[in-house]
Amino acid sequence: MSEELKRALEDCGAILYGDFTLASGKRSRYYIDIKRATTDPRTLGLIADLMAREIEGEAFQRIAGVVLGSVPLAVALSLRTGVPFVMVRKERKDHGTGKLIEGPLSPGERVLVVEDVITSASSAMYAVETLRQAGAEVGTVLAVVDREEGGREALQRVGVGMRALITASHILG
Amino acid sequence: MSEELKRALEDCGAILYGDFTLASGKRSRYYIDIKRATTDPRTLGLIADLMAREIEGEAFQRIAGVVLGSVPLAVALSLRTGVPFVMVRKERKDHGTGKLIEGPLSPGERVLVVEDVITSASSAMYAVETLRQAGAEVGTVLAVVDREEGGREALQRVGVGMRALITASHILG
Repeated sequence: MSEELKRALEDCGAILYGDFTLASGKRSRYYIDIKRATTDPRTLGLIADLMAREIEGEAFQRIAGVVLGSVPLAVALSLRTGVPFVMVRKERKDHGTGKLIEGPLSPGERVLVVEDVITSASSAMYAVETLRQAGAEVGTVLAVVDREEGGREALQRVGVGMRALITASHILG
Repeated sequence: MSEELKRALEDCGAILYGDFTLASGKRSRYYIDIKRATTDPRTLGLIADLMAREIEGEAFQRIAGVVLGSVPLAVALSLRTGVPFVMVRKERKDHGTGKLIEGPLSPGERVLVVEDVITSASSAMYAVETLRQAGAEVGTVLAVVDREEGGREALQRVGVGMRALITASHILG
């Protein structure tokens, strides 16, 4: 299934191969412009289908995506599965008075966090923490791409299992 | 078609009836919590279906939604129609260096702006202006709810036609 996704990501221009220097200063043989994929309805639809297949039979009450990059994933997977979603803001609206979680969420609900690209997983860690503070149960993060740079291990340390539709090794393999 | 939508908005708790004082100080006989509708996949799916029917036969190259409220609408309509979408940020990321428009957009493209609730249309006006500055052609705003408080006229003055799936008169009718 990740071969089909790899081709789709290449076709919409979301994966570029070459010699790139990332914002962190690290060198990379590929570059991912994931918004090209998540704003393209064909690729987004495929991602939602693959994510739905990945969680088939598991009972989540909410899907959550961090603003802004992961919101299209949360919306698409919600429409595909019928599970409602919330959006997790990185900053409070209006200088501290707004809500961090947009959309209804009740304590005790089992929430699936979706992410576009996981590198060190700082965005996913923030989502897990924010949702847990609101009383949600979060045990799984499902990403489109795992860059395999420590994100999985970081999430494991807080009791969260990470799954990804495609990994850096597979992109470069 | 707006009767079905009205019922769906009521059922998901997005329309409340009573005596409300809005942020503007105005009194209102109804209150709309539109995020209850746009984070609920059944209601969001219905909205996307009604919007798709509304623009059937018209040729848009992009759909645009302002962050954050209208992004789920843009995503859902994009998945429903196959037309790619962009997200219009209200503020630049990282204090002035980021992009205001997320997702590919080329000059000359015909863009449909989608909005959740239109009151004075300031958010829609901002979207139209930002997209036009990027070279897009914007002639239509399609909203879920028209509160009928001057938004239509404001958009008309900048050459934009506004359509809505449901109006305040119909909600109160």
